Amino acid sequence: MYTIATFTLVPVGKDISISKYVAACIEELKTLNVNYTLHANGTNIEGDWDEVFSAIKQCQIKIHDMGPQRIFTTIQLGTRTDKKQQMENKIDSVLKKIK
Amino acid sequence: MYTIATFTLVPVGKDISISKYVAACIEELKTLNVNYTLHANGTNIEGDWDEVFSAIKQCQIKIHDMGPQRIFTTIQLGTRTDKKQQMENKIDSVLKKIK
Amino acid sequence: MYTIATFTLVPVGKDISISKYVAACIEELKTLNVNYTLHANGTNIEGDWDEVFSAIKQCQIKIHDMGPQRIFTTIQLGTRTDKKQQMENKIDSVLKKIK
Amino acid sequence: MYTIATFTLVPVGKDISISKYVAACIEELKTLNVNYTLHANGTNIEGDWDEVFSAIKQCQIKIHDMGPQRIFTTIQLGTRTDKKQQMENKIDSVLKKIK
Repeated sequence: MYTIATFTLVPVGKDISISKYVAACIEELKTLNVNYTLHANGTNIEGDWDEVFSAIKQCQIKIHDMGPQRIFTTIQLGTRTDKKQQMENKIDSVLKKIK
Repeated sequence: MYTIATFTLVPVGKDISISKYVAACIEELKTLNVNYTLHANGTNIEGDWDEVFSAIKQCQIKIHDMGPQRIFTTIQLGTRTDKKQQMENKIDSVLKKIK
Repeated sequence: MYTIATFTLVPVGKDISISKYVAACIEELKTLNVNYTLHANGTNIEGDWDEVFSAIKQCQIKIHDMGPQRIFTTIQLGTRTDKKQQMENKIDSVLKKIK
Repeated sequence: MYTIATFTLVPVGKDISISKYVAACIEELKTLNVNYTLHANGTNIEGDWDEVFSAIKQCQIKIHDMGPQRIFTTIQLGTRTDKKQQMENKIDSVLKKIK
């Protein structure tokens, strides 16, 4: 199942700034060679279901390893079997319909 | 990583009522023998990270098999390494603090 | 628009335990006389759109007043214009379809 | 309360493609003159709490007016009282920490 997702990992009970944890996750995604885009409220990622969830799990583990003992995580995703669609197609599809 | 999550699977472009799909997912969770609770906006589930995500994946596959070609899914979860906590502990912990 | 929602308020950069903040929000909901149910991953609430969002805003303000300078909030909701449905109807509708 | 949010409106029981509804919401945001960014899994928006939620409500109403009788909506947001931060600051803050 091809999966397009956005996810956010929020360490709780530690620093008020979470950017260093987001940066560590992005470095992890680079190592995993998965397609991602950082946005203001999370990270978009796409790939096969297992690839996407394995990447999120690696980020969760990495952030726990950095110190935070509690992490609150949100994931929002879509799968579709009628056609292959990638993240940039989704955006293009909207943009060309805006008057 | 022990994981407490809530998830919601919304088939898109098919029926306006989604209860039969939620019911099919609950049946799947029963088969998998995972600890879950149905609530008004989703299903709570707990267990090891892999167990939780494997269960959600099985629901996603089962619902696609029932016909819907697009599913929009949300997952919200917490992991903590400082102590073992289960779903009922979380609720108890709040209830005893309400004045 | 009648709105059925679940929401979660997570104070960031403060305590690892967030139950006292959830309890404070529940007390606020009681004062507001809005229909709610606490579950293991958030609070379900229902009512008119403005009533629901006003209640969430009051919780956000109350928790900031308790000290946390950053709050991460998630809201997931449904509105439907084809029929009036309440939280307990949604659950009943699923339960009677489970084999 | 300055609010940075991402939101997604998914019409249920209607078309499998939702891009025309997203486009209609973007047109609404343009009219409201609110600061937004479209991304692959939703729309980021920022402003005062009331401004942000009023905009989301207008999109919800507009999409119901276009036909869909059920809409599933997710909102994820942050507020912070320690400093004024905007969407582009959040991204910059992460980018300069990536090795």
